[in-house]
Amino acid sequence: MSFDYGNSFALWREGAGGAGGAWHDYTHHAFVEGLRDGSLPRESFLHYLKQDYVFLVHFSRAWSLAVVKSETLEELRACAATVNALVNFEMGLHVKTCAAEGITEAELFAAEEFENMAYTRYVIDAGMQGDYLDLMAALAPCVMGYGEIGLRLGREAVPGTPYQDWIDTYAREEFQQVCAEAGAMIDNAVRRRLGDDPAASPRWAVLQQRFTTATELEIGFWSMGLRGPK
Amino acid sequence: MSFDYGNSFALWREGAGGAGGAWHDYTHHAFVEGLRDGSLPRESFLHYLKQDYVFLVHFSRAWSLAVVKSETLEELRACAATVNALVNFEMGLHVKTCAAEGITEAELFAAEEFENMAYTRYVIDAGMQGDYLDLMAALAPCVMGYGEIGLRLGREAVPGTPYQDWIDTYAREEFQQVCAEAGAMIDNAVRRRLGDDPAASPRWAVLQQRFTTATELEIGFWSMGLRGPK
Amino acid sequence: MSFDYGNSFALWREGAGGAGGAWHDYTHHAFVEGLRDGSLPRESFLHYLKQDYVFLVHFSRAWSLAVVKSETLEELRACAATVNALVNFEMGLHVKTCAAEGITEAELFAAEEFENMAYTRYVIDAGMQGDYLDLMAALAPCVMGYGEIGLRLGREAVPGTPYQDWIDTYAREEFQQVCAEAGAMIDNAVRRRLGDDPAASPRWAVLQQRFTTATELEIGFWSMGLRGPK
Amino acid sequence: MSFDYGNSFALWREGAGGAGGAWHDYTHHAFVEGLRDGSLPRESFLHYLKQDYVFLVHFSRAWSLAVVKSETLEELRACAATVNALVNFEMGLHVKTCAAEGITEAELFAAEEFENMAYTRYVIDAGMQGDYLDLMAALAPCVMGYGEIGLRLGREAVPGTPYQDWIDTYAREEFQQVCAEAGAMIDNAVRRRLGDDPAASPRWAVLQQRFTTATELEIGFWSMGLRGPK
Repeated sequence: MSFDYGNSFALWREGAGGAGGAWHDYTHHAFVEGLRDGSLPRESFLHYLKQDYVFLVHFSRAWSLAVVKSETLEELRACAATVNALVNFEMGLHVKTCAAEGITEAELFAAEEFENMAYTRYVIDAGMQGDYLDLMAALAPCVMGYGEIGLRLGREAVPGTPYQDWIDTYAREEFQQVCAEAGAMIDNAVRRRLGDDPAASPRWAVLQQRFTTATELEIGFWSMGLRGPK
Repeated sequence: MSFDYGNSFALWREGAGGAGGAWHDYTHHAFVEGLRDGSLPRESFLHYLKQDYVFLVHFSRAWSLAVVKSETLEELRACAATVNALVNFEMGLHVKTCAAEGITEAELFAAEEFENMAYTRYVIDAGMQGDYLDLMAALAPCVMGYGEIGLRLGREAVPGTPYQDWIDTYAREEFQQVCAEAGAMIDNAVRRRLGDDPAASPRWAVLQQRFTTATELEIGFWSMGLRGPK
Repeated sequence: MSFDYGNSFALWREGAGGAGGAWHDYTHHAFVEGLRDGSLPRESFLHYLKQDYVFLVHFSRAWSLAVVKSETLEELRACAATVNALVNFEMGLHVKTCAAEGITEAELFAAEEFENMAYTRYVIDAGMQGDYLDLMAALAPCVMGYGEIGLRLGREAVPGTPYQDWIDTYAREEFQQVCAEAGAMIDNAVRRRLGDDPAASPRWAVLQQRFTTATELEIGFWSMGLRGPK
Repeated sequence: MSFDYGNSFALWREGAGGAGGAWHDYTHHAFVEGLRDGSLPRESFLHYLKQDYVFLVHFSRAWSLAVVKSETLEELRACAATVNALVNFEMGLHVKTCAAEGITEAELFAAEEFENMAYTRYVIDAGMQGDYLDLMAALAPCVMGYGEIGLRLGREAVPGTPYQDWIDTYAREEFQQVCAEAGAMIDNAVRRRLGDDPAASPRWAVLQQRFTTATELEIGFWSMGLRGPK
């Protein structure tokens, strides 16, 4: 498998365990494997989808906070485009899938929040407490993690898995391009603030912590999905 | 002239002087009349355009803060769409006009801020201090004021004014639609929080103050344009 | 038992179940009963104390956000005084108790966060998304709930419980006064924005939801304490 | 004259012109010289004092935002203490002086804002857009500039100037101590994020710009005072 989501992501991913550790637990979670081989109970998937819709609402708010915090034209444009894609594209996919199951968008928007509350609010607060980079480090695991999962499952999915649509969403070129561009933009943002050897900056450990915490919150999200509705 | 930018705007406009007072001073400023009859010095216009570009950068940040503060799907979508329109459309118009004068976008982005600093930061802080409505009341004078000015100048412009392009931008149906939709969305946001008789709410005076202050800051913005570069 | 923490609190408390429901589950949690009769394992108490220290750090940040959002002199002063009390008094009590167990303040500050992450970040985000009242509704359950628990345990504690110091902190007149003053300030803030019949405002349901959600997050906090360190 | 407000301040001061340039224009403004030799019209002083009261309200909000953004115990404590000092001490001095002129605190709190609006909102937005350091760089010119002015005027004031009380407020050991401690705290905050050679960091130019812009806004503040009420 090959992907290039930029240098900062590569460093953060390694810092979060790389092929092992928290990053592996997130990208190879039992929920993910259930999507891959089709063994995931439909009830779990729908529970996840509802929670992920609410997640996307707050994730859109977090990317909008990134517009507020942007300092260059590239950052302003990239974050505004991401908000637009989240609100007018990715949220729509969830709505469509859920509509086929008789769940309306109003129900989705009003869904009670579970584990994802800690996640989304942590990301937003990372932006409030720190600067643009703190927010990017907290946002990256979701974007790039789904990219990495999508790419792998696009190759390894068991034919006939009922979750092929979900897999295709993140495996397809369009989403991979989003990840590559986000990675390049983050690299520029990092270089602009921390120079050419960012890992040598005293801020790096804090950014790594943001990334790792968000990765752990992703693991909690999958686990909540797997448990299904209470 | 007829326009319908919603009930909240109508009330706020009236509270800011309506056809007279601050609202009139803003929408009939000497700068505006100079656009209408073509007497505005080119130097003033270009100075204004540069400052307006920087204004739009921070105005986009303010509308993004509105996404952070939105509480309904309608609010989320409307604000995200506005950010997108500002960043990917309206800023582009300024870039195009300035490029024809040999001014690059990088120069625009780096332009020193003058009077507009108070304006944009006041709006962003209105969102920090208050809720979604405080932010909307501070954002409204720019959006709807330009709509009203565009509509009037679309009819009253002296043929041959070199500022016809600028006038058309705000007079055309597309921008008028933006104002009408923003007005309807604001009415819904007001109704949702203050009920059917919002002017009877104790919060109304604070919202009116936000709108009036932003109107006065618009007056200052035109005056700065008129003075031209120092 | 008698306490008067103001009218808004009384309404919100009732809306969160009053003597029953979520409010009862919070104020009569097994953890609380363990403090009262002394049966709470020391390990659970210390785990709670460490997490509560980290909670107070972020709770201080949330009360500071309330200063940012205050609109009157009374609000500005009350919130600034609360931040000061939290940082320079209540956090100090935790440090003292923990020091006696050989836990340094640096360890406390660096403690990994568990369930309380959702709680504190939810409160901060309530302030970001809404206005001063949204933040107050999310802050109130902690302040007034501890006041109510302290008052009851001050009367019902089993003599000799090793947690008498903790109980006294919240039972004593000084803390009760803090709750009464916070309640009066919140009533003023509510009246200023929603008028004399706030429960009739369309915003009331949103504020109640903030209060109820924070109450549920308090229940989760006690449960985490009871489970002790992993 | 000797003062030591830390290394970061010394660098930023130099970057803003040091003994000359903007820093000199701020600390040796005609308004300041009028305080020194007593020639400042009483009307100008009172106009300034009212505006400075409103400035302090928003400056307290900005320091509270610094609590929200703090990442260490030292930062949390220092900023909380500053908010407390501003709200419960410095604002009180203004109230006392104004009361002697028959101006109530309610009038002060409700005073219309002029040039200081750009200043205070710029500082708050610096905190929203950037991190703790961006906010500190924007806050520093006011704190340390007044310290430097106070120290100089404490030595150079013409005996009998009616502004001796004002001068003493900022000349006295207590305020000088505040400046020295703030400077040390900022140095620690800078070292923690940018390492031992902060001026070599790519972020330094941005921080310098924050400091210089705030210095220029201080010049505008004095000029507004000198002009007096409209």
